[in-house]
Amino acid sequence: MEIALTKMHGLGNDFLLADDRNGSIAEKLSYGELAVKICDRHFGIGADGLILILPSTSCDLGFAIYNSDGSEAGMCGNGIRCFARYVYEKTILRQKIMTIETASGPVVCLLENDGEDLVTSVRVDMGPPRLMPEEIPFIWPTSEAIEVPLKVLDQAFQVTPVSMGNPHAVIFMDKIDDIPLEVWGPLVEKHPAFPEKTNVEFVEVLSREKMRVRVWERGAGVTLACGTGACAVLVAGVLTGRSERKAEIILPGGSLAVEWDERSGHLHKRGPAEWVFETKIKLF
Amino acid sequence: MEIALTKMHGLGNDFLLADDRNGSIAEKLSYGELAVKICDRHFGIGADGLILILPSTSCDLGFAIYNSDGSEAGMCGNGIRCFARYVYEKTILRQKIMTIETASGPVVCLLENDGEDLVTSVRVDMGPPRLMPEEIPFIWPTSEAIEVPLKVLDQAFQVTPVSMGNPHAVIFMDKIDDIPLEVWGPLVEKHPAFPEKTNVEFVEVLSREKMRVRVWERGAGVTLACGTGACAVLVAGVLTGRSERKAEIILPGGSLAVEWDERSGHLHKRGPAEWVFETKIKLF
Repeated sequence: MEIALTKMHGLGNDFLLADDRNGSIAEKLSYGELAVKICDRHFGIGADGLILILPSTSCDLGFAIYNSDGSEAGMCGNGIRCFARYVYEKTILRQKIMTIETASGPVVCLLENDGEDLVTSVRVDMGPPRLMPEEIPFIWPTSEAIEVPLKVLDQAFQVTPVSMGNPHAVIFMDKIDDIPLEVWGPLVEKHPAFPEKTNVEFVEVLSREKMRVRVWERGAGVTLACGTGACAVLVAGVLTGRSERKAEIILPGGSLAVEWDERSGHLHKRGPAEWVFETKIKLF
Repeated sequence: MEIALTKMHGLGNDFLLADDRNGSIAEKLSYGELAVKICDRHFGIGADGLILILPSTSCDLGFAIYNSDGSEAGMCGNGIRCFARYVYEKTILRQKIMTIETASGPVVCLLENDGEDLVTSVRVDMGPPRLMPEEIPFIWPTSEAIEVPLKVLDQAFQVTPVSMGNPHAVIFMDKIDDIPLEVWGPLVEKHPAFPEKTNVEFVEVLSREKMRVRVWERGAGVTLACGTGACAVLVAGVLTGRSERKAEIILPGGSLAVEWDERSGHLHKRGPAEWVFETKIKLF
């Protein structure tokens, strides 16, 4: 059996996409097994994860994503932009607003194109932030935690905890280029105030509409980009009076435009999705 | 311009191969630039290096290899096996003994197949070892250095230095699974007795014909396989009386069959080369 695979990336977070609307892959092997096989960067094709295009009864299409270790992930902002561009340009779904079923619930994508049928960016509704300490979870005596002190080694960080479905610790600094990310990151990640650990964002404010971020991802370490992290940074920027409700968040892998919609309370994140290559592999 | 690329690997050391016998790629951009672009594992296709199939006036074909940082490398045992299988199965060169021009001089490959035109393994003549301390280079007062003591932290390693064109420090241990490779490796690599630094092999002897190895590569750290390292291990095994002149060397990425030919004094290394996928990318 031959499987067609397409590699795409969003800010350097790279995926192999396969169309399995007819279930012919699932019939032969589990998606987790397939992900382990093809995502290996030395013996396989290589990617951060495998994304499946699936049918859906409740939404326009179904989205599933598997990590390179074979485990299933929920939503993935960088991945769903790739998914949306793929289904639009491959004419699987020819509409600019699409509702996608994911393991974390339905996600609405808004596609922008250049008038030549190429998708230039995808806006994703990331839902509302959660700020109550117990929702994050963050151990704190009062119901509000904005720039609260967190002691790590000899540093007293001012931390703003935000949940975007997963926990984030946002820390504003004057400069972020020379910080010891590999030392501070894991210490904040595993700080006892975050009982389920946390993602960590160190942020340098360039203007009220532009912030630079270095990310330490929970369980993954230094990464090129973290979509929920970009949203958490904007929320913390607004809560601490540093940022407008709409700003460019510059990550090592590229930029995202994030907006915290006042009416709905939802975060909207706009970013690119790029084609890398297509191939076919024989599996049996 | 569209470029056809094939990904292959030898023991997990993975390469993108491109046929540029007609020079159409070189006309458009440098191979180093191309390597940087396509070898990036997040924004590009992803590989350890780019291998070019080139014409040759002195040999059957020309081989060039570029690292993912754009620098040109010399010979590469894992890479040349992929090259040989590629040119044979793609019917570019339909002979089982081929002489390949490389930046490190001509290399002779011997192909073995399964009778169905699939290459099952490739044997490469790796040339003779160099054992004189000044050839390695290794700072030592006498002309022979076999299991000489090297102090690293509180350890006194018994080191056999061998050059296979690049320096190696072979260290036999009772067990290698639990050694602190990331600590010992760089300390031996940069030990002042090796003025040009060294690759390091920790070896567990399973029998006189089978040895397991964990490798610390000079400038690269922990790797899945090192072809010249496997040769150095066999040489050290023979010199110290632990091994026959022919043995299986088991590396984390797979096994190589290495033989130290008594008559020629050359090392012959036999191993696999695997197809991963093929694709075409647009460059302009």
